Amino acid sequence: MTEELNKVTIHGLVCPTPLAHEDTIVMGHGSGGRMTQKLIEKIFYPPLENPILLRGDDGAVVSAPEGDRFAISTDAHIVSPLFFPGGDIGRLAVCGTVNDLAMMGAKPLWLTASFILEEGLPIFLLEQVLLSMQASAEQTGVAIIAGDTKVVERGKADGLFITTTGVGWIPGGRELGGALAQVGDSVIVSGTLGDHGIAVLAARGELAFKTALESDVAPLNDLVELMFDACPEIHVLRDPTRGGLATTLNEIARQSDLGILIEEDKLLVKPEVQAACEMLGFDPLYVANEGKLVALVPNGYTEKVLESMRTHPLGVDAVRIGRAQKSPEGRVLMHTAIGGTRVVDVLAGEMLPRIC
Amino acid sequence: MTEELNKVTIHGLVCPTPLAHEDTIVMGHGSGGRMTQKLIEKIFYPPLENPILLRGDDGAVVSAPEGDRFAISTDAHIVSPLFFPGGDIGRLAVCGTVNDLAMMGAKPLWLTASFILEEGLPIFLLEQVLLSMQASAEQTGVAIIAGDTKVVERGKADGLFITTTGVGWIPGGRELGGALAQVGDSVIVSGTLGDHGIAVLAARGELAFKTALESDVAPLNDLVELMFDACPEIHVLRDPTRGGLATTLNEIARQSDLGILIEEDKLLVKPEVQAACEMLGFDPLYVANEGKLVALVPNGYTEKVLESMRTHPLGVDAVRIGRAQKSPEGRVLMHTAIGGTRVVDVLAGEMLPRIC
Repeated sequence: MTEELNKVTIHGLVCPTPLAHEDTIVMGHGSGGRMTQKLIEKIFYPPLENPILLRGDDGAVVSAPEGDRFAISTDAHIVSPLFFPGGDIGRLAVCGTVNDLAMMGAKPLWLTASFILEEGLPIFLLEQVLLSMQASAEQTGVAIIAGDTKVVERGKADGLFITTTGVGWIPGGRELGGALAQVGDSVIVSGTLGDHGIAVLAARGELAFKTALESDVAPLNDLVELMFDACPEIHVLRDPTRGGLATTLNEIARQSDLGILIEEDKLLVKPEVQAACEMLGFDPLYVANEGKLVALVPNGYTEKVLESMRTHPLGVDAVRIGRAQKSPEGRVLMHTAIGGTRVVDVLAGEMLPRIC
Repeated sequence: MTEELNKVTIHGLVCPTPLAHEDTIVMGHGSGGRMTQKLIEKIFYPPLENPILLRGDDGAVVSAPEGDRFAISTDAHIVSPLFFPGGDIGRLAVCGTVNDLAMMGAKPLWLTASFILEEGLPIFLLEQVLLSMQASAEQTGVAIIAGDTKVVERGKADGLFITTTGVGWIPGGRELGGALAQVGDSVIVSGTLGDHGIAVLAARGELAFKTALESDVAPLNDLVELMFDACPEIHVLRDPTRGGLATTLNEIARQSDLGILIEEDKLLVKPEVQAACEMLGFDPLYVANEGKLVALVPNGYTEKVLESMRTHPLGVDAVRIGRAQKSPEGRVLMHTAIGGTRVVDVLAGEMLPRIC
């Protein structure tokens, strides 16, 4: 009973109270001197350990594998709270950048990670994040090969921000991009919509009801390789993160100057997500996902790609939701469940801040 | 007179008052929707414009040049204030990562830049930073090929943080690293010590006197190429940033398990830096530089390297300050100007926070 009462939640994680001053980040950890050295050697190296990182130089030296095209992508991660059902900022930082590379048809090879720590951040919390990053990196097959740590004063950051940058190798023959969508392409989505955004909201206590919903945050690179095995001519791959599926489809329509028509009754939305959206006035089409992808593939490959996706845990619910067509140029339309047709526009402003 | 009084300084830059709400960053700029799109297209693209970045995909695709070894380095930049004499966070973010690559013997090719913006940040200020990044990138010969923008609530960041990650190509035959220092190597420093750290302190108003001192922030990659022309066998290259020259030399001593002996009367410190350090109780050996390098080269190449460095504006004051020797293993000693010898230790904790 007393134990229960003593539990303190810090940035979404239950804290082993009481914390002493030496268990938290202080400004000296960012000085570049002995304290920085100790922080890196005792807290960062053990979970992330790999030979390139441990060399301890200012960056990493890597050898290029076969092939000559590389994908490079970077993302800052500022999710609040740092821990949420199904994931945390560390898993998000690894999967987010791995997925950006996978969406470019690249096989992720290396990640760098740069940390901005707020003075007072409990070190046990940083350790949890690093363990999570390492587990996600292992699952994904990437190595975290270089990093950086800075500390800012209390109140000048929000616990912990992580920027990851990834480099991946693009096998020959893969040509992807929003501009490459073709009339007749099938639009495929890998699963349910909005799980991540609503799970993070729930973790903030912004829902009036309890939910067992978890974020879908996951690395999509293996699923993507299965899809390329089934169809070497995938035209577009995107992960519908900030702004959700609607924003992603609008980007593709705009880049290709084609129309995209989707069928509302094909879209999968979990009941918990549906309920939360109705309560909050959100549309699941605009809610962020972190383990889903959208693909545009030549129509003739549709069944082969779907079958292949459904053999993977992250693709069991894969479904064709619509097609690319000549008009309306640069816009997205939806056949609604009740028989109408409406424009699906880009998200105008803010909906869910700090979800990735 | 009235004009003078109306001038407002925001994060170190004079502001064209009055600012309207629409001239500042709001949470919606981080939503991934239309406002994010507009911010990127109107504010980020014009200064940073290049064909790879403008493709607008989730990351960048690049082709590898000749050779098969690459250097990758990442750094978060959190300097306060954002603008200081001689530079700003944008120039620092480009030069910092370019220099990390150059210190690995790499020719910098590509940079990514990820921005964490605080709600309320004046957009004119962001534009100044981006222009400065582009100017520094041009000076350096790198392209900023991918980026990301996130926004956090007022009070959850400090204006603007930038993480840059760089990829460079390492020409064949270059083998560098702290562990490669050899007994007898000359220790060379490219110029004066502590300019950056003290210039940033002065910009914070933490000095009791006015000073014309400017930060030395500058890209070192051209200087490094001249040095390799003069001596293909450079053993170690480092830029003594956070923690200063003392910390950098200690890292090299530790990695190589050699002793390093330096001569105090060879070290160049500007009078303004000397005065500030005396007033504040700092040692210029521990103050950050952002446009200086330390090299360990085989003794026989010393004069050739120095001559070559002095032909470059960033190397005119290049000087041999000491040598690597067998003992004391892993430690740095200094012959002082008054004839004694003292241990130069690593910086123990915090000295100058938020200087890079």
